[in-house]
Amino acid sequence: MGFEVIGADSHTRARLGRLSTAHGAVETPVFMVVGTQGGVKGLGPRELVETRSQVILGNAYHLMLRPGREVMEAAGGLHRFMGWDGPILTDSGGFQVFSLAKLRKMTDEGCLFNSHIDGHEFFLGPRESMQMQRAIGSDIAMVFDECLPYPCERDRAEKSVEQTIRWARMSKEEPHAEGQQVFGIVQGGVYDDLRRHCAEELVKIGFDGYAVGGVSVGEPEECMYRAVDASVPFLPEERPRYVMGLGVMHQMAECVARGVDMFDCVIPTRLARHGTAITRRGNVAIKAAKWAFDQGPVEEGCSCQCCRSFTRSYVRHLLNAGEMLGLRLLSIHNVHRLNEFMAEMRQAIAGGYFGEWKEKTTKETTQNE
Amino acid sequence: MGFEVIGADSHTRARLGRLSTAHGAVETPVFMVVGTQGGVKGLGPRELVETRSQVILGNAYHLMLRPGREVMEAAGGLHRFMGWDGPILTDSGGFQVFSLAKLRKMTDEGCLFNSHIDGHEFFLGPRESMQMQRAIGSDIAMVFDECLPYPCERDRAEKSVEQTIRWARMSKEEPHAEGQQVFGIVQGGVYDDLRRHCAEELVKIGFDGYAVGGVSVGEPEECMYRAVDASVPFLPEERPRYVMGLGVMHQMAECVARGVDMFDCVIPTRLARHGTAITRRGNVAIKAAKWAFDQGPVEEGCSCQCCRSFTRSYVRHLLNAGEMLGLRLLSIHNVHRLNEFMAEMRQAIAGGYFGEWKEKTTKETTQNE
Repeated sequence: MGFEVIGADSHTRARLGRLSTAHGAVETPVFMVVGTQGGVKGLGPRELVETRSQVILGNAYHLMLRPGREVMEAAGGLHRFMGWDGPILTDSGGFQVFSLAKLRKMTDEGCLFNSHIDGHEFFLGPRESMQMQRAIGSDIAMVFDECLPYPCERDRAEKSVEQTIRWARMSKEEPHAEGQQVFGIVQGGVYDDLRRHCAEELVKIGFDGYAVGGVSVGEPEECMYRAVDASVPFLPEERPRYVMGLGVMHQMAECVARGVDMFDCVIPTRLARHGTAITRRGNVAIKAAKWAFDQGPVEEGCSCQCCRSFTRSYVRHLLNAGEMLGLRLLSIHNVHRLNEFMAEMRQAIAGGYFGEWKEKTTKETTQNE
Repeated sequence: MGFEVIGADSHTRARLGRLSTAHGAVETPVFMVVGTQGGVKGLGPRELVETRSQVILGNAYHLMLRPGREVMEAAGGLHRFMGWDGPILTDSGGFQVFSLAKLRKMTDEGCLFNSHIDGHEFFLGPRESMQMQRAIGSDIAMVFDECLPYPCERDRAEKSVEQTIRWARMSKEEPHAEGQQVFGIVQGGVYDDLRRHCAEELVKIGFDGYAVGGVSVGEPEECMYRAVDASVPFLPEERPRYVMGLGVMHQMAECVARGVDMFDCVIPTRLARHGTAITRRGNVAIKAAKWAFDQGPVEEGCSCQCCRSFTRSYVRHLLNAGEMLGLRLLSIHNVHRLNEFMAEMRQAIAGGYFGEWKEKTTKETTQNE
């Protein structure tokens, strides 16, 4: 288990890697599909395999609230619960406590909050999060962190980074599931020196991998790349790097060029819910009237289950009629598209043409974004 | 093409049949799954095959409103539109005009109404319905009929039956899709003589099969069986008989004992939406708290995709969390259960033990209903 760099681009920081976990190996750069509550918008394990999904994301916050730790323990963990025997990564719930829940009180031990579901009171800190992630049995657990909003004052960011570092240490010290890797999360907002400081402190504690957190929270695209540039150089080469919450194609390519290996985002299923297909020629609004009679697939040349069997006309009709099959088919396409995109990216790095590939696909994929 | 009786029970009117259509043969008695708008609650063609679904139901009313006849024609019919190359039966829309739409005016030619979707004005009568069903290209088209509510005065029922007979004749005279069979629909409410009269008149016109309509519209169970008993004896032995809108297991068994061959109902997907599993031991509320920790399948011994791979605990969690995968898995189970039930019924008829089987399964399946 662990991470191996197996190739690198000679002009950028882009690299090919293999992350070995207790449930199989992951080829990086990788996009990870989000199944927050143990379900990926109508996609079962079979569809996850067919869309070439390598890693599924779960969330300690959501699963603690519902179905709860005891149910997860009774099932013997999330792999058995959801019938997925590939790798699972779980987020710690830090982000959700600050974005979804009604935060009541924050101490050095964690956060007291009211559930966004029913107002029920919970406490989540590094101990509780790691305990929950142990019950989930994820292959990769994330440390409990404080996720800063954007924008954020320097003063608050400084204090928050110290809290994140303390919580990272506490998270590391908690017992983990057998074979479970633990990743640290670099915070620091838009302050380069805080990012560096956080990265260096986390490396001193020592983790199996490192994430850049607090990006894709509403900041301009340049700030996002800057946060990555302020963090990655201070992280060890031999460990995987993960930018959390990012799933836009050209942004992932930019981050890979900056040395990032892993991504996750709800974007493929969220866009599907809005009737939007992700294609190599940009986003396409499949619900638009112009597709009413269209007998072509959602994306020409795509080999996903949706594009192999159904027309734009049919998928559009299902979406307009509120038939859940439409959402499911479009989710299948979108997840498959991002996974194919990453596979192409890996080929480009291996083939030594990552730079040209990035330029070309960025032009193509941003056409309608 | 046509219907062949290939076996019969010696104590009841139950019979085994084979209905040949332009898209393959159907073993009867059969339950037909409802995909009103060209989609079956998250189940694609693959899941329909896996749940042993033989025939899919479409609806001329819904498909006329959305996506419309022109889209259906552009697709080359519903089979290609939804990627299902098995048999399709379409209802004429008669029932929907009277139950869903805002009826504005009824003439001898049909009904002027406002769409239940957006209030848009449409006209649907025997001509328009057959034209729509021709565009859909269903293997079996139903005549356009007037569906009476329950209860209904004798006077109104009399007039309505004459209208239904006239419309049946007009439906027959319209051009049909190549290889498309047309079924008549016996109406007459709770009035035995009207049922008989309607049946006899329809037989004079001559159809490929006959349905008993206007049942399962809120009347007591006895009235339903009585309507069947008042209709079936006057229908030809060599034609299939279909009770519309029925999908409760013991009720289907009772109707088969009365000589019925075909059924359809939204019940498997509707119950799934309410978190209820159909099992051979009756209905089970999977959302109930008592299943929170349960590691067994939704139904012990069931071979469906849901029961083979997932626990009650997981399906319950998905349903409670509003994850559409839960609804999809439970729909798969429920559709599979009804199809298995009919397969067992066919075996019982073939094996000469239909009577005992019916008694036993009625006891079992009504436990929690």
